[in-house]
Amino acid sequence: MKKYKKVNYPIEDVRHYLEPSPTVLLTSAFKEERNVMTLGWYTIMEFVPSLIGCMISGGNHSFELIRKSNECVINLPTLELSKTVVSIGNCSGTEIDKFEEFNLNTAEGEMVNAPLLVNCYANFECRLYDCKLVNDYNFFIFEIVKAHVAKVPKYPKTIHYRGNSHFVQSGKNIIIPSAK
Amino acid sequence: MKKYKKVNYPIEDVRHYLEPSPTVLLTSAFKEERNVMTLGWYTIMEFVPSLIGCMISGGNHSFELIRKSNECVINLPTLELSKTVVSIGNCSGTEIDKFEEFNLNTAEGEMVNAPLLVNCYANFECRLYDCKLVNDYNFFIFEIVKAHVAKVPKYPKTIHYRGNSHFVQSGKNIIIPSAK
Repeated sequence: MKKYKKVNYPIEDVRHYLEPSPTVLLTSAFKEERNVMTLGWYTIMEFVPSLIGCMISGGNHSFELIRKSNECVINLPTLELSKTVVSIGNCSGTEIDKFEEFNLNTAEGEMVNAPLLVNCYANFECRLYDCKLVNDYNFFIFEIVKAHVAKVPKYPKTIHYRGNSHFVQSGKNIIIPSAK
Repeated sequence: MKKYKKVNYPIEDVRHYLEPSPTVLLTSAFKEERNVMTLGWYTIMEFVPSLIGCMISGGNHSFELIRKSNECVINLPTLELSKTVVSIGNCSGTEIDKFEEFNLNTAEGEMVNAPLLVNCYANFECRLYDCKLVNDYNFFIFEIVKAHVAKVPKYPKTIHYRGNSHFVQSGKNIIIPSAK
């Protein structure tokens, strides 16, 4: 599986990768346990601090690990990982070690204990910023505290879930300058 | 400008169009005033009720109209409207009537007073569901109470903002069934 070499990336510019809302893989860890889940429901919320809001269902094993550790990593997979992304979303970390099952290569984070997925194009290390909506909506607000992004390719081919096994791939990039 | 004919669409299935997070146009109205703004920061939050969370900057004219009316419409533009989407995002409804300026055709909503944009592929009528995060983050949780979606084309070409005038177009649609 492809391993992406990454460089530091300005955390206030993560919208470049996350605002188009590709399906991502969320990794988490607490003590000896770790997990990875597929995530589609999230949004940028602020540039500085660099905030992301996301929905993590209470039924997920990851929910408990994140509740206890207050940390996670958002990993950005590309098209070649799409079958793995679906498989990760369709099994539970309470039953198997998904990292072993899917041969995921990991690296240590700099700011958090959750693992970085080396096979993903980018890794965004996150710390819990606000849990006000967790009880009502399972909605966490994280601050991205470190961003690792590959330089090649310039525009990764990402996948965006629509539900019912349907995805849309990212297409052509266009620049539309402001008029005047 | 193209006018899309629409049919009712199940509100619990709006993720099909909104989970890939295309840049959308938000319309609002209060008394004699109405406005339209460009929105990129939002996420699906629940199927039933059909919830969407979104960030509407307090500096926007739309913010006030939505605060007073507790309603809005999320309109889904396609590629051919991309220059208009950018222009709408770069001017203020306090200074001009954007509907006139950009020749936007409107229709009346069934459940809310905010106008539907006829030139968009889909219109999602929304009522405020929870304003708990509005003071801290300008983050509104809306319930979609009515969805109008065109049947043709099956997969509209949408645009997804990345910041700094860069967009990514939606690309090929793929089906990736769950293994086993």
